[in-house]
Amino acid sequence: MKSIRIVGAGLMGTSIGLALKSHGVEIQMVDSDPRRQKLAQDLVGRPPTLPPELVILAMSLASLPVVIAEEYALNPTAAFMDIGSVKTKPQLEVEKLQGMSARFCGTHPMAGREVAGPEAARADLFDGRAWILTPSHTTQSDVLAKVTHIVTWLNAVPILMGVQEHDRAVALISHLPQISASLLAKQLNMGAENSLALAASGLMDSTRIAGSDPELWREIIFQNREEIRPILQRLHEDMGEMIASLDKPAAIEKMISDGKAGRERIPGKHGSGHRNYAYLPIVIEDKAGQLAALFAECATAGVNIEDLSIEHSPGQFTGLITLALAPDDVGTLSNHLLNHGWNVHAPRA
Amino acid sequence: MKSIRIVGAGLMGTSIGLALKSHGVEIQMVDSDPRRQKLAQDLVGRPPTLPPELVILAMSLASLPVVIAEEYALNPTAAFMDIGSVKTKPQLEVEKLQGMSARFCGTHPMAGREVAGPEAARADLFDGRAWILTPSHTTQSDVLAKVTHIVTWLNAVPILMGVQEHDRAVALISHLPQISASLLAKQLNMGAENSLALAASGLMDSTRIAGSDPELWREIIFQNREEIRPILQRLHEDMGEMIASLDKPAAIEKMISDGKAGRERIPGKHGSGHRNYAYLPIVIEDKAGQLAALFAECATAGVNIEDLSIEHSPGQFTGLITLALAPDDVGTLSNHLLNHGWNVHAPRA
Repeated sequence: MKSIRIVGAGLMGTSIGLALKSHGVEIQMVDSDPRRQKLAQDLVGRPPTLPPELVILAMSLASLPVVIAEEYALNPTAAFMDIGSVKTKPQLEVEKLQGMSARFCGTHPMAGREVAGPEAARADLFDGRAWILTPSHTTQSDVLAKVTHIVTWLNAVPILMGVQEHDRAVALISHLPQISASLLAKQLNMGAENSLALAASGLMDSTRIAGSDPELWREIIFQNREEIRPILQRLHEDMGEMIASLDKPAAIEKMISDGKAGRERIPGKHGSGHRNYAYLPIVIEDKAGQLAALFAECATAGVNIEDLSIEHSPGQFTGLITLALAPDDVGTLSNHLLNHGWNVHAPRA
Repeated sequence: MKSIRIVGAGLMGTSIGLALKSHGVEIQMVDSDPRRQKLAQDLVGRPPTLPPELVILAMSLASLPVVIAEEYALNPTAAFMDIGSVKTKPQLEVEKLQGMSARFCGTHPMAGREVAGPEAARADLFDGRAWILTPSHTTQSDVLAKVTHIVTWLNAVPILMGVQEHDRAVALISHLPQISASLLAKQLNMGAENSLALAASGLMDSTRIAGSDPELWREIIFQNREEIRPILQRLHEDMGEMIASLDKPAAIEKMISDGKAGRERIPGKHGSGHRNYAYLPIVIEDKAGQLAALFAECATAGVNIEDLSIEHSPGQFTGLITLALAPDDVGTLSNHLLNHGWNVHAPRA
């Protein structure tokens, strides 16, 4: 591809433009706000002279129906993709336009920031992230190929889903957390100022996304309300049950424990994921070269490190490394390291 | 002070021990679990020979009443402090013991992590954090002086409060966020596994504290239920109103907007994180030996890694490593790695 048009010069559109820049493709940034358009175009380089082969619709869900129609009229032979957080409604809009459905593939990158605008754009926003594609049965193969190509250029991982399957999944993993965080943060309006000054990182993290753009979220929640309603009702019922359980320690523990189990279902570093790791703590001297030496020992022992964490403290001369390993490897590695003089502690599951 | 006894070798007790180590004070780590006690004592150094001048009670709220009595009998002339998350109930326990109230000052450091145990301890856990002191009218001045001294050694900011004022403040800024995050994370038990694999950072952040210890939180919530109940009821009502508003875009926007306003009331000083690191993203092939090779390069460049995170994408052969470094080291390491063929991305602050 030589020429791409990105309509919507916000965080997402501009981040896509920035990331595509390094692939030598010419990019046109378009926005209804001339200031944003100019900033975004300046960031991604000179606009193209050729007509666009692909149009990326990166504006708000509310303006999408009008813009889809305008852009299709302007660029009837281009391929089209959107990047909105809800997929069922935009697909219906596309199907209203004669011939458009064949040229369109809905998409949704699972990335974002709680700050908006082209100023917040980053070329690495999509690195390693999932990017959902929701082609319809009428989407032509060259369109799907172009869209897949773009996602790969952006270092993201293309994942195919149906529009309804998508909307149900994001209701749980994205829209419910947003509502929950916003309602929690709303309660802070009632707190004394000196109480809020005591806030620790738990409050900061659990309300971070409450800083998101209310207009953007109004549209997302409204458009996906049929998928959101039943799970929000379930959360509301659980909260009612928690209130009724405040005098019962065992019931409180069960709720917190169920939450821990839910949290652990999130795959990857932060939850424990599907993989069953064992953890080996090792106290090391906190100086350059110690980590490399430790990893060299692991390689010698033929043990693969699945993940690790480092806890150490500025100004201290000791640090704690916890290695995540396949459970079968723990005994081997522990013995090997002990025999070579490392300060290895008892493993935990 | 020359000798301090820390009862409870969990995250908090061991972190206090690590931080005090650099002040040349001898520390005895005590725990009912010998494995934890040994690891903690190894981390903080040799135990003292002198009797303790200060006993820090760093165990769970549930075992506090029994341990307070035992420790007071063992060390009748020492000063005592606890570090529990609720202050009204422990003060009542102390007042049951003849003479103990004069030797005791309740405290609560506004710091913590969602991971438990001595493995997770770090000496800088309290840096720049508020540390609440709740002396009673009977607390002797030498006790308050010792406790204030310790808090200052730990680089925390001592703040005086009454026990009830404390319990009301933490209900809003700590206990409500915990319940909200746990109930949100509980809903993830209902999600399809492939939905959860799509989780982005918003879900990770808003459920992070749901990974906390259920037994610990059972006690905190139960002991502070009278302060928690009214604010949890308010959150529950707001959620009911949100469900009733899902068909009304303006009402949805108002809720999200109120949340944004509440979030903005949290003062910034604790929000931005007290560790001044710069972050260097590196895309690596996700295979054995790559991490060892990367760390060997860092050692060759003479750069110490302060922390790191690993993100894998489902089904991909690439992973993203983000190294946390002292800001002065970023340029050096980035150039070194680029010169040796690594896929290094632009650093961020």
